[in-house]
Amino acid sequence: MTDFAATKALFHLPDGMIYLDGNSLGPLPLAARDHVGKMMQDEWGDMLITGWNKAGWMAKPQDLGDRIGRLIGAEPGHVVMGDTLSIKVYQAVASALELNPTRKVVLSDNGNFPTDLYMVEGLLRSLGEGYELRVVDPEAVADAITDEIAVLMLTEVDYRTGRMHDMKALTDLAHAQGVVTVWDLAHSAGALPVDLAGCNADFAVGCSYKYLNGGPGAPAFIYVAPRHAETVRPALSGWLGHEAPFAFDLDYRPGAGIERMRVGTPPVLQLTALETAMDIWDMADIHDVRAKSIELCDLFIAEVEASCPQLTLASPRIGTQRGSQVSFRFAEGYAAMQAVIARGVIGDFRAPDIMRFGFTPLYVDEADVRAAVAILADVMNNDLWDRPEYKIRSKVT
Amino acid sequence: MTDFAATKALFHLPDGMIYLDGNSLGPLPLAARDHVGKMMQDEWGDMLITGWNKAGWMAKPQDLGDRIGRLIGAEPGHVVMGDTLSIKVYQAVASALELNPTRKVVLSDNGNFPTDLYMVEGLLRSLGEGYELRVVDPEAVADAITDEIAVLMLTEVDYRTGRMHDMKALTDLAHAQGVVTVWDLAHSAGALPVDLAGCNADFAVGCSYKYLNGGPGAPAFIYVAPRHAETVRPALSGWLGHEAPFAFDLDYRPGAGIERMRVGTPPVLQLTALETAMDIWDMADIHDVRAKSIELCDLFIAEVEASCPQLTLASPRIGTQRGSQVSFRFAEGYAAMQAVIARGVIGDFRAPDIMRFGFTPLYVDEADVRAAVAILADVMNNDLWDRPEYKIRSKVT
Repeated sequence: MTDFAATKALFHLPDGMIYLDGNSLGPLPLAARDHVGKMMQDEWGDMLITGWNKAGWMAKPQDLGDRIGRLIGAEPGHVVMGDTLSIKVYQAVASALELNPTRKVVLSDNGNFPTDLYMVEGLLRSLGEGYELRVVDPEAVADAITDEIAVLMLTEVDYRTGRMHDMKALTDLAHAQGVVTVWDLAHSAGALPVDLAGCNADFAVGCSYKYLNGGPGAPAFIYVAPRHAETVRPALSGWLGHEAPFAFDLDYRPGAGIERMRVGTPPVLQLTALETAMDIWDMADIHDVRAKSIELCDLFIAEVEASCPQLTLASPRIGTQRGSQVSFRFAEGYAAMQAVIARGVIGDFRAPDIMRFGFTPLYVDEADVRAAVAILADVMNNDLWDRPEYKIRSKVT
Repeated sequence: MTDFAATKALFHLPDGMIYLDGNSLGPLPLAARDHVGKMMQDEWGDMLITGWNKAGWMAKPQDLGDRIGRLIGAEPGHVVMGDTLSIKVYQAVASALELNPTRKVVLSDNGNFPTDLYMVEGLLRSLGEGYELRVVDPEAVADAITDEIAVLMLTEVDYRTGRMHDMKALTDLAHAQGVVTVWDLAHSAGALPVDLAGCNADFAVGCSYKYLNGGPGAPAFIYVAPRHAETVRPALSGWLGHEAPFAFDLDYRPGAGIERMRVGTPPVLQLTALETAMDIWDMADIHDVRAKSIELCDLFIAEVEASCPQLTLASPRIGTQRGSQVSFRFAEGYAAMQAVIARGVIGDFRAPDIMRFGFTPLYVDEADVRAAVAILADVMNNDLWDRPEYKIRSKVT
């Protein structure tokens, strides 16, 4: 059984703050600063260029990929870190389209995170005539999977409401129609158990700065199923995905398996910070995390509904049908969230009216949930949000 | 006049090491560890998600882009950081092709860094029929610029020999034929003055971990000329290049000017390390750096040619025709470089027979050059390289 008091003690959680935004950016692991500092001094400082071999920098993208792979049910050696999630979406969808060359439609839903849609829009525009990004309601996805579709690209957990797609069922439907799947695990990895191998998924991507706690700008990951790993030819064919990067050949030859999904020089400082975060994950069982997260979310829903009649639940009521977050709708949700944040409860707002709270058992417990609800109820029931300074929109929320 | 003793004192240079590989990875600025540590503690740790606004994380890619822009003659507000150089090459060439839609040939040379060629190979394959990457000898580039060419993509300084292209002359030739230019400044930025605006360049890209000293995996930069900045539509259209990223619209609308070349979440730890490196650059005049670099390189060539008859100069003999490095050919160059490295002189090897030494006046001086030559001469004249352990190839050199 995971010892959540022990994991909580390994994070820096500012005094007077209840942090319910780990679904946007996870907190600082206490050991991260020293670990990164040591890497900077002992490796960058003392080894300089030889750090790529001696300190194992070159292997970090695969080492960390495998550590994350364990949380998402990937076969060992089939996940690699690099770039940003946007780039990895592009890479996965471009590769998936090449596996289905007679079809030209990418199917997604309007609950997907916008950058996934933007990246595919850009990709399809460059591919030329006849390519189409078809975006339907989340509930309409299953019926829209036909033999016209080349690629099904979905985010498992809706970033606004937490609504989950059934990965196994939709992947099965897709495969029955000859459709290749790309799953975005941004709000899944570290939030709930994912079984990529068991679902027979084709491609998956995700980021490591949310539930995985890798720090601001931590790199993304990409998974390619073993059955495709030696056949896909990445559209983003960079030198570190080459069979022999340091031969400096003029022609590209894809590297072995997942190595070919690497592109450029990996961000060693970010990967080093992520290592500390993954050390904490080694102490946790993702099934325990999921059970505890459902408990915390259920408690939050019950307490908020009992004390804040102004708020309407936007997330699925049934724990197994949502991710590790709870969202409520409120017309003045932006101002209300600012007022709550001013009192030390950090959630976030998503347009047009979603107040979003993430529950992350590694460092959030029942006492935090109760304290957060007390503050939220105070803000709501005393209209504390109704002040001009809470209505000024900032660039990033 | 730049005080190079003062800049040298700001780097960690390991005892007993003469570092002539700043063209691969610059050394650690002494202040970087504390600066990154402070950012991790005071910003990631204490501000968490609010750091994107409060600590200015979201603005770092443009702030640092402008600081680098000053070294490469870019107009303010036209350089932005992000991703890796490979990704930025793809983005630049894809955008450049769209500005020239009736043509389908990208011209480059076989002295270009291979990943540039690989990325364009992947791009053109995805664009479909008729697209061609035409790779000629560096000396043949000028004659190969015809009205058939859509995009001229060149690296200004050859990574192996240091041979320089004439950016102004080739850009003029290109424009006379209606060709759009993409310049890779990997071995130029921080090595020598570049005048993008004065050359009328269209696009430029580069990395920040070589001469700029941003650390392993530091992000890349991209420049788009003001005349194109509001018309290019980036193929890699990520949410942070959107006009209103936090509106979460389903459709992509490019952001203002260079902002549209941003893609995903920026690597804040890497950007923070780069800030310290740029503080040192604020103390230097790039013209002084260039003059000193030519002096150091000329001294190295003279001393090596006087003492190591086994080595053949591979770099241009005239200082203004080469970058900030000197390369010599030797059939057993790999082993010789390993033997030199074992004695504390760090250069690197590039296949098939190039021994490469970088000269970086910010932290390398005449005494270093003389000491390095003494060691190299000892290795060469006493065949110290002729040992089996120096002939085992490592993955990264």
